[in-house]
Amino acid sequence: MADTFITRTMAPLEVLSEEGLSVIEENAETVLEQSGMVFRGFPDALGRFAAAGADVDIEGERVRFPRGMARSIIQANAPREFVQEARNPARSVTIGGMHTVLAPAYGSPFVRDLEGGRRVGTIEDFRNFVKLAYASPHLHHSGGTICEPGDLPVNKRHYDMVYAHMRYSDKPFMGSVTHPRRAQDTVEMARILFGADYLDDHVVLMSLINANSPLLWDSVMLGAAKTYAEAGQAVIMTPFLLAGAMSPVTAAGTATLTLAEAMAGMAYVQLVRPGAPVVFGSFASSMSMQSGAPTFGTPEPALVLYTCAALARRLGVPFRSGGALTGSKIDDAQAAYESANTLHPTILAGVNFVLHAAGWLEGGLTMGYEKFMIDADQCGMAAAFAKGLEMSQNGQALEAILEATPGEHFLGSAHTLQNFRSAFYVSDIADNNTFERWELEGSKDAAARANERWKRVLADYEPPSIDDAVDAELLAWIERKKASFPDSDI
Amino acid sequence: MADTFITRTMAPLEVLSEEGLSVIEENAETVLEQSGMVFRGFPDALGRFAAAGADVDIEGERVRFPRGMARSIIQANAPREFVQEARNPARSVTIGGMHTVLAPAYGSPFVRDLEGGRRVGTIEDFRNFVKLAYASPHLHHSGGTICEPGDLPVNKRHYDMVYAHMRYSDKPFMGSVTHPRRAQDTVEMARILFGADYLDDHVVLMSLINANSPLLWDSVMLGAAKTYAEAGQAVIMTPFLLAGAMSPVTAAGTATLTLAEAMAGMAYVQLVRPGAPVVFGSFASSMSMQSGAPTFGTPEPALVLYTCAALARRLGVPFRSGGALTGSKIDDAQAAYESANTLHPTILAGVNFVLHAAGWLEGGLTMGYEKFMIDADQCGMAAAFAKGLEMSQNGQALEAILEATPGEHFLGSAHTLQNFRSAFYVSDIADNNTFERWELEGSKDAAARANERWKRVLADYEPPSIDDAVDAELLAWIERKKASFPDSDI
Repeated sequence: MADTFITRTMAPLEVLSEEGLSVIEENAETVLEQSGMVFRGFPDALGRFAAAGADVDIEGERVRFPRGMARSIIQANAPREFVQEARNPARSVTIGGMHTVLAPAYGSPFVRDLEGGRRVGTIEDFRNFVKLAYASPHLHHSGGTICEPGDLPVNKRHYDMVYAHMRYSDKPFMGSVTHPRRAQDTVEMARILFGADYLDDHVVLMSLINANSPLLWDSVMLGAAKTYAEAGQAVIMTPFLLAGAMSPVTAAGTATLTLAEAMAGMAYVQLVRPGAPVVFGSFASSMSMQSGAPTFGTPEPALVLYTCAALARRLGVPFRSGGALTGSKIDDAQAAYESANTLHPTILAGVNFVLHAAGWLEGGLTMGYEKFMIDADQCGMAAAFAKGLEMSQNGQALEAILEATPGEHFLGSAHTLQNFRSAFYVSDIADNNTFERWELEGSKDAAARANERWKRVLADYEPPSIDDAVDAELLAWIERKKASFPDSDI
Repeated sequence: MADTFITRTMAPLEVLSEEGLSVIEENAETVLEQSGMVFRGFPDALGRFAAAGADVDIEGERVRFPRGMARSIIQANAPREFVQEARNPARSVTIGGMHTVLAPAYGSPFVRDLEGGRRVGTIEDFRNFVKLAYASPHLHHSGGTICEPGDLPVNKRHYDMVYAHMRYSDKPFMGSVTHPRRAQDTVEMARILFGADYLDDHVVLMSLINANSPLLWDSVMLGAAKTYAEAGQAVIMTPFLLAGAMSPVTAAGTATLTLAEAMAGMAYVQLVRPGAPVVFGSFASSMSMQSGAPTFGTPEPALVLYTCAALARRLGVPFRSGGALTGSKIDDAQAAYESANTLHPTILAGVNFVLHAAGWLEGGLTMGYEKFMIDADQCGMAAAFAKGLEMSQNGQALEAILEATPGEHFLGSAHTLQNFRSAFYVSDIADNNTFERWELEGSKDAAARANERWKRVLADYEPPSIDDAVDAELLAWIERKKASFPDSDI
């Protein structure tokens, strides 16, 4: 039985000294003070920041922050960690501290599987991934826009996506952010599912709010953030920085801009509702010199990740970053190496909430069925690693060593027999048979085995139970809502 | 221009507390005291340990160590770090401290490439890999038995292997260990290459000495170790533990046995020649419950690796472990994920000497041409990561951020233009083009690109210059030696 989330036993890896981190913090304050941040088309933010004492240029929609102001608003109000409740209480997760919660990839227009290749995602794909994440012992969270259901109208697909999370999984999930009204719809649906009053003092929704970097938050994202914050629900304020395009090309510069933007966003949320759960988000990539395309699994974004995780710890808020990121189009060695190169920092830096932990391909353009299974297996390995060494008498195994005969094996020893079944993480993807056996079985690669695996998991899927009356109410509410305005593709 | 070796800027990741490490150290002392270690067929070790005060059972060939004895012999004599000289002084490497030296995989009977598939290795393959390692900016060392040249007699192939390292590369390399006489041959050849006296006070050879775990060192390995130590050359004393077979199934138990065996072996080397350079080696794998096969890239060996690295630091000797290890037969996602799962701990634990950093497939049975190129690229990424953040004014990039216009990109900014060329690690394997472009170019996977890459590197290869007289002397010496005894396959 896997754990509901990961609780690390080891201190995070630090790539930068305290002094170096202080330099970045001071530089971020200088950015907030001198450049400030634009809150575009969103007078509510300008008004709240002016009232809080910031220097607001109404016409330029720009807020300049006295040094330390954003930081102290956050530190005075934002929780260090919080629980996101699942409709199955056994699956509720703690966001923050020594905990790490893994969620599927988010936002791909395309999906891919070995037979079908790359194609536009549908609501059926979306439901399939909700089911796969539900069935995986290694993913703790159902995620959000796992893939865009391209077969549904843009202005109504959020109903089907949120319903899929609610109905086909009982893990915690994320809300719609593409319009403040869709955020409000998500809150309404959560009130039906959890009970209207329950949301007053419980976090049941987490949502991804991206900055329009550099130095800009826009009205759609801010409107969604405001809606969730007012309902006491969690938002992840995430500067999305492709270094060289939305930030300087250096790791320290990118971390500085991330911190400045995230602090401005989180401070706004705290002004909307002091104490609202908020997460410091970071998404940073490097850039291909040849094509200008974002690149993943490279060393520089890993340094940014470790640095931003340390900055979030110093600020005292939960941190979101990481995942199994790759620019590869298929499940090849590039995909796996690049994904590992983000997944390791994700775990070792102590990221608290991890989007894109499984399924990501092609810089996020594609959600892969086989990649999902291969990544989820790695998430299981990460969880086993994070437990650290078992140092009980049984773990120390001193007696077993003292009983051993030099040059003779431990296979039949009492300690081995007693511990063998649970001693090692068992992968459901790796092949460790002999070459001859592997060849006899068709010389399959990891993707071919993953293909068999996701089909079996979907075939075996059984939905978690739900109160029939609640389900009927949800469906009726959605039908009413959908009928109340015309379809549209914006 | 790549560096001659990696010098890390960050403290190693610790997975176990000081208290936990002390428990393992105490347990290792108990093992050395109560079980002791068998030195089979090698009276020299029994005699030296008896003279040093150990409790020696001559008939059982077993040495039991008073608590702390092995540790104090090592700490009183073994260097904390040392330089292994290359014949090109610009390529000499420092083994120990904050440094990491990466070498190719070692010991495979088979080789693999995309066209030829898996086949028995030859001396031509061996030379090819020496050339590829020489040409790679990311490998610092030429390694040793990169693959077994199956087309040469077992008792003479070491001449061709050692000569290949000497002639086709000018990076540091490893000596033969399969017989003490072959170790002596390696020393003789090094005396021809470097000058006879040079070896008296310079380390030019490094050699891999494996224990016959559990609790046993055999005469072939000890004889080779003695030969190198007497010549002042470096040996890596490596317990080779497949957990569940050669050690208990737990990480703490495996680390305990590793420490006990390595200390016994290193103490012997220090009795042969006090101050001889010695490396604490560790090679630990987990086991497949289904097949009993060793498994790689799993969480448990990573925990052993981090723990043993900490134990070596506390002991005060350089540490060898890690690499790009996998059980996969081909260059698929399993191979890359598993390899990354050892390569990350290797770098983050601060391993000093890394065998198997490139080329490993199939649990070490196969050396892969494409895998070599894919792994070497990752070694380059690891080196870039280990440099840490650049915190100069240019690295901080504060001016660049302050000059930025909210919502507008940095692509044309002076800072970007100034830094763009060197800002990001550039992979020679990854494809970051658009999906459409990638498809047009043949939908190649990483292995297909690596295949093109190693062929181009070999086609472009030019040998480093060598003194013609030295080369002639080496070749004449080898010819004489080869003619002096009959071929044999043992």
